[in-house]
Amino acid sequence: MLTLYHSPRTRSSRIIRLIDELDIWPEVDTRIVSITHRDGSGGHDSKNPHPEGKVPLLVHDGIEIWESNAIILYLTDLFPKAGMGPVVGDPQRGRYLSWLAWYGNVVEPVIVFGAAGLSHPVLDVTFRGVPEMTARLAQALEEAPFLMGDRFTAADLLLVSPFTWFPEAAPDHPAIKSWIERCEAQPSAQRTAEFDTKHLETESAA
Amino acid sequence: MLTLYHSPRTRSSRIIRLIDELDIWPEVDTRIVSITHRDGSGGHDSKNPHPEGKVPLLVHDGIEIWESNAIILYLTDLFPKAGMGPVVGDPQRGRYLSWLAWYGNVVEPVIVFGAAGLSHPVLDVTFRGVPEMTARLAQALEEAPFLMGDRFTAADLLLVSPFTWFPEAAPDHPAIKSWIERCEAQPSAQRTAEFDTKHLETESAA
Ligand SMILES: N[C@@H](CCC(=O)N[C@@H](CS)C(=O)NCC(=O)O)C(=O)O
Ligand SMILES: N[C@@H](CCC(=O)N[C@@H](CS)C(=O)NCC(=O)O)C(=O)O
Repeated sequence: MLTLYHSPRTRSSRIIRLIDELDIWPEVDTRIVSITHRDGSGGHDSKNPHPEGKVPLLVHDGIEIWESNAIILYLTDLFPKAGMGPVVGDPQRGRYLSWLAWYGNVVEPVIVFGAAGLSHPVLDVTFRGVPEMTARLAQALEEAPFLMGDRFTAADLLLVSPFTWFPEAAPDHPAIKSWIERCEAQPSAQRTAEFDTKHLETESAA
Repeated sequence: MLTLYHSPRTRSSRIIRLIDELDIWPEVDTRIVSITHRDGSGGHDSKNPHPEGKVPLLVHDGIEIWESNAIILYLTDLFPKAGMGPVVGDPQRGRYLSWLAWYGNVVEPVIVFGAAGLSHPVLDVTFRGVPEMTARLAQALEEAPFLMGDRFTAADLLLVSPFTWFPEAAPDHPAIKSWIERCEAQPSAQRTAEFDTKHLETESAA
């Protein structure tokens, strides 16, 4: 049994989008929980078992799986048929793992520092910055329409997510801009937005 | 063919330690490269194909794999016999993926902010801080000797690494302190240190 703890229009919307892409709605019990938002609204939800009150959290047969990139990898391995990520043994597997890890290790910190207007030599040395992040994405996207090649995979789904939430963080580079458009043109983007809108309304009506 | 780009006594020493634990020395061509150190010493090495001049980088049959946590997962999946990490299908797989991802997404940023003396409300909201990191580790290590239970796995190898490099970052908590000692008592710790010392000497003699 898979249970997903989700809050609409947050980092866990990426998992909703993946469930849609994998076409596994009947397999997942999705529980809508509230979280403390950045502006202080909302609040911790006692129904959310995540130890830090965050979303997403996936529970599979009693085992808690946290961190978006770990959850994404877990689900694409559990449901490989949709081809959303190369499985163990596929020659492209290492590249897939690297994009997912690099997102969490580098892209998210760099975007958060930018949003907070933080700069510090130690951050530059450790994480580099927007120019290096942009160069990395551009290099891949000048060679192929998606990060793993010809197909939209969960690597695109994760890596594109900050640029669709905060369009002002989207690098001003033609290959990256057209990749963002291509990712957003996949029907799962629209369906995820609709799912979240519906559940936000339920929440405020409650 | 596996090629590892390594610089002694850096983040890539974790991969050396994993190669030792997996007992796969004959499978890996290890190339020692120099990097730009934090103090400005060293410098970019043209022999290192990593696009940002960093280590570790693993290349498998021409595919580049970057980010320590991705490389670790890739290798424990490729060489599962040593039992250094649960494979796809193991009920503990999700927990393993979560520890590896959480290290990169949360632990490394929190330690870097501490080392740089940086604090900012946005960092606290996004990454939380040392108390939350400590609580998470302590909760696991009060229940079992290692993060995945009774055995030392690659999750321990990765998560313990910042606390052995920067002992001042090690949380002052009895369960965590004795875990660090248990991890360091594994013979691979000593052998990795010897490997690095030898290669540092070779480098300075060159
Ligand atoms: N590194 C985590 C971050 C999760 C996260 O910060 N989620 C936000 C929602 S966008 C949250 O739950 N915030 C509530 C809180 O911080 O209390 C991941 O990638 O899953
Ligand atoms: N997120 C990367 C970080 C790698 C990293 O920063 N490595 C350092 C060595 S400790 C490096 O190569 N520094 C050289 C540089 O930044 O140019 C990982 O986990 O592999």
